[in-house]
Amino acid sequence: MTLTLYSMPSSGNSYKIRLMFGFLGLEYKHIGLEYETPELAEAHATGALPMGKLPVLVLDDGTPLPESNAILCFLAEGTPWMPRDPLDRARVLGWMFFEQNRHETVIAVRAGIQKYASRAHLATPERLAELLEAGHSVLQVMENHLAEQDWFVGDGPTVADVALYAYTHTAGPYGGFEMERFPSINNWLARVALLPGYVGLEELPE
Amino acid sequence: MTLTLYSMPSSGNSYKIRLMFGFLGLEYKHIGLEYETPELAEAHATGALPMGKLPVLVLDDGTPLPESNAILCFLAEGTPWMPRDPLDRARVLGWMFFEQNRHETVIAVRAGIQKYASRAHLATPERLAELLEAGHSVLQVMENHLAEQDWFVGDGPTVADVALYAYTHTAGPYGGFEMERFPSINNWLARVALLPGYVGLEELPE
Repeated sequence: MTLTLYSMPSSGNSYKIRLMFGFLGLEYKHIGLEYETPELAEAHATGALPMGKLPVLVLDDGTPLPESNAILCFLAEGTPWMPRDPLDRARVLGWMFFEQNRHETVIAVRAGIQKYASRAHLATPERLAELLEAGHSVLQVMENHLAEQDWFVGDGPTVADVALYAYTHTAGPYGGFEMERFPSINNWLARVALLPGYVGLEELPE
Repeated sequence: MTLTLYSMPSSGNSYKIRLMFGFLGLEYKHIGLEYETPELAEAHATGALPMGKLPVLVLDDGTPLPESNAILCFLAEGTPWMPRDPLDRARVLGWMFFEQNRHETVIAVRAGIQKYASRAHLATPERLAELLEAGHSVLQVMENHLAEQDWFVGDGPTVADVALYAYTHTAGPYGGFEMERFPSINNWLARVALLPGYVGLEELPE
């Protein structure tokens, strides 16, 4: 099966999938579409992005699958990255919904409104302060959990770790969050980066 | 198995689970904890809410399972509400991540900041206008999809429909969104409300 990934090089949601491919040791075709480029506008116009966002995984029959965390689950099914136990599966999904609802919407958003010209009007002092406080609160939930265990669910890494790693590992430099307050998170970030097959955010397939 | 649900009567995320129990025809114990009450503060203080939010499903051995959409998947596994086909499963999850990332954070938030006293300071004209526009854009993604098919994934209702129904069916009256612009969504809302076992937002178990 030849899998094609439409991904945004600078985006954590897209990076998740490139990281998962690395950990799984799978080959894939990579089509990079950067934010605020004509190529991305054209992909929108031609209907290549069914729910209007990147990343999108395209199966070999042309079927597009959107939503980063759904793609992670699809790729991980049947591997150690997705537990078989029903309760552990639900826990993995729980952390992934937490990531999309409470984490990405704060941690990634605070970075994004400072980075992209088209969102700069959102970066008011009030909004930045509100996102800083909310982000520290979300990171504290992760810190409390990781103080008790090495990985989010069970005894080894799962897609929950992949999903949460993407925007957490840049929360300090890009988002301005005070990561020195979260030692257990920092230890977990280091553990993830040592796993076989790890690729960095900026290591794009050719 | 006796399942206990900690749920917030006024919250769509909690309502999802009560609706799922209705559709599955399952009995459960309901513990209502309303927003801004001493009872909710006590549940936080005693550690009953592992990730700091409602709803939480408690299994008969006392294991708590947080995150509304993860609870839906846990309850639906092995029933027609969660497809067996890997691609359809990923599509269901995709709509559920969309719901937590792009829908609940806009549709529910616009309702919430107008409803709850502790969030009233967030209801500035600028924020309300921004959320209105973002919400209409999110609803348009749903409208385009439902113009083509009766249910979000496949030929019948799944947990994706349950997840999206909760905050969509109150988006007009509570959120102030212009639902007359979305006829396919309105037809789908009517289909969900006619399913056997349906319970309304305010129909709480005794």
